Amino acid sequence: MKNLLVAQSGGPTSAINATLAGVIKKAAEGKADRILGARNGIEGLLKESFIDLTDRAKEEGFLTGLALTPSSALGSCRYKIKPDEFGKIIEIFRKHEIAYFVYIGGNDSMDTVYQLSNHIREQGIEDIKVIGAPKTIDNDLFGIDHCPGFGSAAKYIAAIFSELERELAVYDVENILIVELMGRNAGWLTASAALAQRKSKIPYLIYLEEVPFCFEKFMEDIKEKRKESKQIMIAVSEGIHLEDGRYISDIGKDDIVLDAFGHAQPGGVGKILENLVKKEIGCKTRAIEVSLLQRCAGHLLSAVDLDESVKLGCHAADMALKGESGRMASLRRVSEEPYAVEYVSTDIKEVANREKKVPREWINTAQNGVTEEMIAYLTPLIQGEMSSKFENGLLSYVIL
Amino acid sequence: MKNLLVAQSGGPTSAINATLAGVIKKAAEGKADRILGARNGIEGLLKESFIDLTDRAKEEGFLTGLALTPSSALGSCRYKIKPDEFGKIIEIFRKHEIAYFVYIGGNDSMDTVYQLSNHIREQGIEDIKVIGAPKTIDNDLFGIDHCPGFGSAAKYIAAIFSELERELAVYDVENILIVELMGRNAGWLTASAALAQRKSKIPYLIYLEEVPFCFEKFMEDIKEKRKESKQIMIAVSEGIHLEDGRYISDIGKDDIVLDAFGHAQPGGVGKILENLVKKEIGCKTRAIEVSLLQRCAGHLLSAVDLDESVKLGCHAADMALKGESGRMASLRRVSEEPYAVEYVSTDIKEVANREKKVPREWINTAQNGVTEEMIAYLTPLIQGEMSSKFENGLLSYVIL
Repeated sequence: MKNLLVAQSGGPTSAINATLAGVIKKAAEGKADRILGARNGIEGLLKESFIDLTDRAKEEGFLTGLALTPSSALGSCRYKIKPDEFGKIIEIFRKHEIAYFVYIGGNDSMDTVYQLSNHIREQGIEDIKVIGAPKTIDNDLFGIDHCPGFGSAAKYIAAIFSELERELAVYDVENILIVELMGRNAGWLTASAALAQRKSKIPYLIYLEEVPFCFEKFMEDIKEKRKESKQIMIAVSEGIHLEDGRYISDIGKDDIVLDAFGHAQPGGVGKILENLVKKEIGCKTRAIEVSLLQRCAGHLLSAVDLDESVKLGCHAADMALKGESGRMASLRRVSEEPYAVEYVSTDIKEVANREKKVPREWINTAQNGVTEEMIAYLTPLIQGEMSSKFENGLLSYVIL
Repeated sequence: MKNLLVAQSGGPTSAINATLAGVIKKAAEGKADRILGARNGIEGLLKESFIDLTDRAKEEGFLTGLALTPSSALGSCRYKIKPDEFGKIIEIFRKHEIAYFVYIGGNDSMDTVYQLSNHIREQGIEDIKVIGAPKTIDNDLFGIDHCPGFGSAAKYIAAIFSELERELAVYDVENILIVELMGRNAGWLTASAALAQRKSKIPYLIYLEEVPFCFEKFMEDIKEKRKESKQIMIAVSEGIHLEDGRYISDIGKDDIVLDAFGHAQPGGVGKILENLVKKEIGCKTRAIEVSLLQRCAGHLLSAVDLDESVKLGCHAADMALKGESGRMASLRRVSEEPYAVEYVSTDIKEVANREKKVPREWINTAQNGVTEEMIAYLTPLIQGEMSSKFENGLLSYVIL
């Protein structure tokens, strides 16, 4: 038996199950005998917490429903693999006759793929193939034009900015709205607000984590925009920090909580800025932290993102079935107008543990917005509307 | 000339422009010579800040686009009319030959309609008709089965709960999510989370402002649910308060800010509860304040709500044109299965300045959820999906 095992890891996205559906689809069409899913990523793999998906893959509507279900249907983990666990993983692979392992995740998960595939190669094992399939709303993966999941999150962010802007405009009073967006170490999500900005009569200020944040400049920017308009929209990355690296969200906190990978977990920067603006200007000011809503909004998906996410899953399974290992399924933009991508294979080493930041040349000179290059990059990714299924007025999902 | 003036007031909703579109449609079909809109409610009326909508009403796609545009397209205000301003309003009505005035708003706006129509009657004026058209996401208006705008907000809340629940389920760890919802003095919006709860495997706790909040009971409820599940979803009204009336959100604050109507403006209750749970239990806990997102989500509307909102606008204009005054366009539920409503006229006195709370018998005996009666009441209101228009991946609105 040559079985395929698939697992999901890291923070969920609204398109990660589309990639899972793609993996299952291709594995079912291809030469995998059984298709297994590990619950909760590597953690479930180590516990042999498996679910057999071979028969479900044949159920009518299953793959379509799964693709439109947000968040990781197999569950996820934030687990840093330990060097002494590779042996156990190989043992489990042997026991369950797993010849192909596709791991869907972000930077940290690609590190797991990198290390595991290295171990397998070093051991001279040739009949187990390990492939990474990318996902992250943060869009901070190297070796790929853009990450599956990001397009839907960007579309959602552009949509809520357009909506919040209508909200802001209703009262004839000075009103400043600060929207805090995810992006620990990259400002791509925050930059997506610029898509709504282009259609807006209200001025926007956009602060990405790539530019050191300065309270004085922030207040000057606001004072400048107040001359143009009573209302101002502000988008801010959760990860903005001072020149010396201190997160704005940590100012005044005694402790910085670190997650399992040693990343600080910022949050609350919107409220800090809201209080500052209220104190300095005194006008109506409100901060909104979009929080988890931006990464699970299955009711508003980018059709382009969904399509690419499924295809990347198919491609990842195909790569494994064809004998590739230690690589990530990737996509390359081959044309701008009309927008076109091709599905390629990237050395996992180029992806693991690196973070792709927003290029400085895509940030405007005033460092409070983005350039046309950024808009041209983002626009194709948010095209077309799709949604999870509704039944009797309520969202309906595939639950594994 | 007999012109019709329409204005919007209070907090916007994602269906308030559907009612505006209905008013304009009926006025255009009926005997109004010109259709005027006042910007920013009574405030704009007093400043004669008018916009002529007569010709725009004839533009193809205008009314449909307007109906699908969230937030008050004419702008809004929170302005308490002063007794000495009635004379000025009549003067302005005379100057602009306004024979019909339709005011779209919530409790406070219906008070304006009540007072203004009283003044007109007392003055023996017979050729100016004043009608209220209801809106409020809070669903706290008397004299109507449910408020236009509420159904869409309820649908949105049910959708994000279903999504957030998928998020919560991904990690195999103890995880408590607290979602703070709007509703200053009524728990209807928070109760809408129960629509998602019915389809959920994860236990829910729902705290409405109608029940005095008790920290000890809250912690006991959580400890009880922890026995069933690692994950717990909690919905909480922004307006929850202690037995003695103090808002939870105000605990620890020095001042309570009052708005123009003397209402306290609560907020931040989610964070207070998050901190309590973290301190008492220590597990992963996160609070999300949905904030303005729940009242402007034009990208996810209830088709039933949109349809009723347009029809209520038509009905309000029709009532004015037919000579009614001092009344509110209303709807009455005449059948449960199949769901059916009829459009009626309610004495504005019954509506003004009152707040319809969630009936205590629709709250469960444990006071942490709702009954089947509430579900039966809510379910028809969230049926069918509609959305604002998308163009090139972005939301596209009618801007007045």
